[in-house]
Amino acid sequence: MTKDIKLRLKDVSSSNPGNLEAVFSLGNGHFGVRATNPIESSAVEGTLVNGFFEYSPITYGEAAAYYPKRNETIVSLPNLRKIRVFDDGHGEFTHSKLVDMQLDLSNGKLVEEYELSNDKKQTIKMNVTSAIDQREVHFYGIEYAFEAETYKGDIYIDKNFVLEEAKGETGDDIDDPRKTRELKSIKREVVATDDLSQTIAISTAESKQRIEITAYGFNDESHLSTKLSLADEPKVSYGFIVGEKNEKGDFAKEDFATIKENSASFWHDTWQNGEVSIAGNDELNLALHYNIFQLNQATGRDGKTNIAAKGLTGPGYEGHTFWDTEMYMIPYFIYTNPEIAKKLLVYRYNTLDFARTRARELGVNQGALFAWRSINGEETSAYYPASTAAYHLDGDIAYAIGNYYQATHDMEFLKDYGFEMLLETARFFREFGTWAKKDGKTVFEFHTVTGPDEYTAMVDNNYFTNRMAQNNFNLAYKLGLVLMEKNPEAFGKLGVSIEELEVFKDIAEKIYFPFNDEYQINAQDDTFFSKAIWPFDETPKDKYPLLLHYHPLNIYRYQVNKQADTVLADLLFPETIDDDQLSREFDYYEKITTHDSSLSRSIFSALAARMGDMKKAYSYFSDTVRMDLTDLQGNTEDGLHLANLGGSWLSVVQGFAGMQVTSAGELKIIPHLPIEWDGFEFRIVFNGRLLNINIIDGKTTIKLVDGQPMNIIVDNKSYKLEKATLEILSKGE
Amino acid sequence: MTKDIKLRLKDVSSSNPGNLEAVFSLGNGHFGVRATNPIESSAVEGTLVNGFFEYSPITYGEAAAYYPKRNETIVSLPNLRKIRVFDDGHGEFTHSKLVDMQLDLSNGKLVEEYELSNDKKQTIKMNVTSAIDQREVHFYGIEYAFEAETYKGDIYIDKNFVLEEAKGETGDDIDDPRKTRELKSIKREVVATDDLSQTIAISTAESKQRIEITAYGFNDESHLSTKLSLADEPKVSYGFIVGEKNEKGDFAKEDFATIKENSASFWHDTWQNGEVSIAGNDELNLALHYNIFQLNQATGRDGKTNIAAKGLTGPGYEGHTFWDTEMYMIPYFIYTNPEIAKKLLVYRYNTLDFARTRARELGVNQGALFAWRSINGEETSAYYPASTAAYHLDGDIAYAIGNYYQATHDMEFLKDYGFEMLLETARFFREFGTWAKKDGKTVFEFHTVTGPDEYTAMVDNNYFTNRMAQNNFNLAYKLGLVLMEKNPEAFGKLGVSIEELEVFKDIAEKIYFPFNDEYQINAQDDTFFSKAIWPFDETPKDKYPLLLHYHPLNIYRYQVNKQADTVLADLLFPETIDDDQLSREFDYYEKITTHDSSLSRSIFSALAARMGDMKKAYSYFSDTVRMDLTDLQGNTEDGLHLANLGGSWLSVVQGFAGMQVTSAGELKIIPHLPIEWDGFEFRIVFNGRLLNINIIDGKTTIKLVDGQPMNIIVDNKSYKLEKATLEILSKGE
Repeated sequence: MTKDIKLRLKDVSSSNPGNLEAVFSLGNGHFGVRATNPIESSAVEGTLVNGFFEYSPITYGEAAAYYPKRNETIVSLPNLRKIRVFDDGHGEFTHSKLVDMQLDLSNGKLVEEYELSNDKKQTIKMNVTSAIDQREVHFYGIEYAFEAETYKGDIYIDKNFVLEEAKGETGDDIDDPRKTRELKSIKREVVATDDLSQTIAISTAESKQRIEITAYGFNDESHLSTKLSLADEPKVSYGFIVGEKNEKGDFAKEDFATIKENSASFWHDTWQNGEVSIAGNDELNLALHYNIFQLNQATGRDGKTNIAAKGLTGPGYEGHTFWDTEMYMIPYFIYTNPEIAKKLLVYRYNTLDFARTRARELGVNQGALFAWRSINGEETSAYYPASTAAYHLDGDIAYAIGNYYQATHDMEFLKDYGFEMLLETARFFREFGTWAKKDGKTVFEFHTVTGPDEYTAMVDNNYFTNRMAQNNFNLAYKLGLVLMEKNPEAFGKLGVSIEELEVFKDIAEKIYFPFNDEYQINAQDDTFFSKAIWPFDETPKDKYPLLLHYHPLNIYRYQVNKQADTVLADLLFPETIDDDQLSREFDYYEKITTHDSSLSRSIFSALAARMGDMKKAYSYFSDTVRMDLTDLQGNTEDGLHLANLGGSWLSVVQGFAGMQVTSAGELKIIPHLPIEWDGFEFRIVFNGRLLNINIIDGKTTIKLVDGQPMNIIVDNKSYKLEKATLEILSKGE
Repeated sequence: MTKDIKLRLKDVSSSNPGNLEAVFSLGNGHFGVRATNPIESSAVEGTLVNGFFEYSPITYGEAAAYYPKRNETIVSLPNLRKIRVFDDGHGEFTHSKLVDMQLDLSNGKLVEEYELSNDKKQTIKMNVTSAIDQREVHFYGIEYAFEAETYKGDIYIDKNFVLEEAKGETGDDIDDPRKTRELKSIKREVVATDDLSQTIAISTAESKQRIEITAYGFNDESHLSTKLSLADEPKVSYGFIVGEKNEKGDFAKEDFATIKENSASFWHDTWQNGEVSIAGNDELNLALHYNIFQLNQATGRDGKTNIAAKGLTGPGYEGHTFWDTEMYMIPYFIYTNPEIAKKLLVYRYNTLDFARTRARELGVNQGALFAWRSINGEETSAYYPASTAAYHLDGDIAYAIGNYYQATHDMEFLKDYGFEMLLETARFFREFGTWAKKDGKTVFEFHTVTGPDEYTAMVDNNYFTNRMAQNNFNLAYKLGLVLMEKNPEAFGKLGVSIEELEVFKDIAEKIYFPFNDEYQINAQDDTFFSKAIWPFDETPKDKYPLLLHYHPLNIYRYQVNKQADTVLADLLFPETIDDDQLSREFDYYEKITTHDSSLSRSIFSALAARMGDMKKAYSYFSDTVRMDLTDLQGNTEDGLHLANLGGSWLSVVQGFAGMQVTSAGELKIIPHLPIEWDGFEFRIVFNGRLLNINIIDGKTTIKLVDGQPMNIIVDNKSYKLEKATLEILSKGE
């Protein structure tokens, strides 16, 4: 489907190199390689392996009971792209100017062009072609082609690893929580070296992990250090494979052609089931494809690794996984590649023991609380008001499990993983919440809690949290009954009774939701509206994001949102709110939202689209879809904003196409086309079917590409979808 | 008055040495010396100089804007009491057994008795007498008297300083916030030494402070290392003075007789104006005297130093000053030695620039926020939810200023220090609070705030905070008008207008106070009663204090108090609450209070007395007054609980005697005598008068010891107090 769609940016030579490294990085879910300059040092070395981390002690200014004691940081590995090039007088070509960079999104091939110069100002050209294997995930190939320019003699290249590169800004005392910390317990050593290959090992003292990386030439006779002649022929090329293994065993080599082939076939398949494109706006279309591309590159596919907040494109946020996965990224996989969605949820399942331990640390005798930020599932958050207190995370994971099951009816998953997680999260909510009386009624509440909005903390009855908890209880009840019916034996093994399920149902019915009578909207929490509105008029532009310029106490005492909170619940639970209230709610919260979080705009875009406010929907989408390409947040160099990549898919599919699954389990779309576009098209997988949905002005065309007939609701009307293409003329927007 | 009242504890040889060191420590407000064993090493070296601290960087697990960047820690100085004793074979007497310890509260003399032994198990007796100069505050004298026991030969003593002693449990990774941290940037060196004296210097690399300490013998011919003969005479004694100077200049020597004299005369004067005694219970009477004694020993008297939470008796809480000073300790000084109360307030005034800076850091363009914990006034709190958020501190300081003025009418103080502080704190409250609508009324509120109770944090409208802010606004208004009238020039210089004062008055009238309709009591905050009550029945005794055993998030989500909060406001503002509501309020909050803070029981005692619940009043008092003597909190070894020392005075004078100053400025007492006592008696200074008040069953006797006639209200009846003694027969309790 996606043919010849390439990312190429203007003026790369004058761009911030850090941004380019992140934007053009390659990854396969297992490891990632930033597009660092092969000749000059970068602030970030650029190689990250998913799940390869080191512990370090967390030091608190003032600690308290059950604060996490150790941090986890993804380990920066030596640069795989580094090459040293010397002239025939053995002067080094130490300067390089980036001329061009092209990333082919249809096959994953990255092509770069540099002009190298030595101290005598003699120049040669260097073209670099690289690709990462998407099937045999341990291999990366890179080919350097040299061309004589003002220098025309022999060149000597050295492709041995550089074990220690100059470091950029890191360290313990950095104030920006979005960056990473320096590690002192990492050992890098050469374990084997000969003319033809070199193997290095990187090991961690505390987490006891070890990785070996081997570099070898394309051909069996390619030496890592060798002479190439630009005197005889104007152009020579030389390539290396870098393979990585983290377990003992023989090292099986892979050749560059296979790497490129595996990359191309993976992308072909990925686009086949997950294409999404915009007609009539090449820039946004490219950005959207780019986002989906990078989302796939970052995603662990083995059930043991997940998606870091910055993917494998940078060490920002220390390589941790957050709620971003379930709320912003899993939806794309659920509806295009459910096998990967399942693996991501299995990752959570594999952390369940950590989550149970954490719940006990919080004084809860039953249930599990998943880690707010972690690599292996152990809680590492050092600031609980915006982490542990944000225990909606449990509900977010439950929500993703519910959606996955709805879209797959994967009973094996429910039996082996899903229901146990629903049960344990519901139990946590039951134990951590409390029964209370409100206006004479018995209600179930949550106190001292933080919702998605990190500019409000430690409040009572955050609407979003209560809604997620309710959904969690409902799912545990309903899917518990399903499992009990279909597989009573599996159900029986989990130590749960019908009575316990009935309690979940009862709590779900009695959960309290704060409501503001004056504005007739859902209230973010019990006391949100008693606070003054942030003085936006007096806040200069350079004081955003607020978190870097104002003390938390100053931010928390105002009505101000870092990101979508109550309105995110509105997007997730469309059946809980009518159009009028949604409109009032959107307007109110929009005015007080700074979008200082990269997780915000996509939600506002999707909701605006659903409300039919296409101007706003388009505007938010336009920002959100290009966030990293335009460095909107100002920190793309630390790594891409992975949640936002998934968010732009949400904007299109759940926003513009208005896709949702009804409580009856039926697929529903409510198309809204921005006037700026000729149309848009996407594919989704739903309960074994592959659908292609094309929306143009006045017409929605749905094609059942594969699978059995099914019903689909379009604009509140139900249609039977057969093999033939369904064309629906809609009322004009 | 106080004659021959001595502290002597049973079984000192089997007591925890750390507790004894703290309990028997000597101090003079400038420096303190723990009663460490002179022969063996202690975990804490024992010498602290008020205000002598070092900076160290604060490391946060996750930092945010305007978190304090450096910590301040009081510096442990070399042990002044250390002596080395050798036998004639130069074997050292390295073992010592404490036999007795006596602290004379009437003159400040400490007498100890030890039995020393060498490796051959030969023993000698060592009696130690020490005193600290209370007038020339740089001197401390200690005399060692040796007596032959099984060993009868010559002994060799060495009184040179030991610069580095073995350390006990300190360090960066300690989890108990009540302890201290290790410093690595302190330099200790010998700067001058000869046979007769030795001078050492201690300097800090970061705070750039330096202190010199000189040891010299009682006599000009006393060598620091010398031989004494126990062969010829069975008993010999040898004494040293340790002087300290922190500024350049000649070192003027002081002799031991003068030190003892200055100590005795100081204590005579102090008891003269501040006696408080209980008849019929020697144990509590001793404990009460002890508390007053230690409170005086800890208190800086120079306007540049204050009172640390542990005084000068241990490095716990890093030597920081908290709100404890104004709320728990200044009252004693205001009513017995107002000159010292003034110095403590001048200390705050001297930190006003830090406080202004801190307010700016919190985004407030006017006003000042004093440091929650600090030595020099710079904010060093590393956990803002229980520090910066507890900005009632500003109101606490204002309250103390108001009380000081009421009890002294010190116009010079008001002009030079007091009003400016009232103005700046009122401005902070004005800027950090907000106007809101509540039930149609315009009210003034405070959001995301923490009251005294550290088991509840980041709530809206903490009753105590709102009450303190209201008082602050009222004081700024009223005393502003006073200053304007009496000294318009001084008023004019402060950049304040009548209009601004009127705003304060207006806000004071409109401050919102949360109230619980169901229980008809003041509510601790807006949402306190929506939380569940802490599961006290399921909490084992060894899980207290809760802060060491439960995650803050777990504690905060319940109704549970670490200490008096709303009821503290009731004690401070008796005119705001009637007896019935007070009784309901006391009962409600008492049930949910753990008294995990040492600042709690004295308040409950005082209030219970005021309510006439003498059983409870007595019980709380009995615990509170002996807190450190019985190691009630389990951590006396880290230093005494200074606030509680002041609190026991509050219990007696503001509780049992019911002393208060009415809004009309009149002194009022409402005596309540526990049946366990024959009576109690105390002295207070009030607007230039010295009163002696004696309360026995059925009779209150008030004597105007010094000063002009005045009115006094006893049990709601006003009396004219002349030179003659006033006897009032009261109704039976």
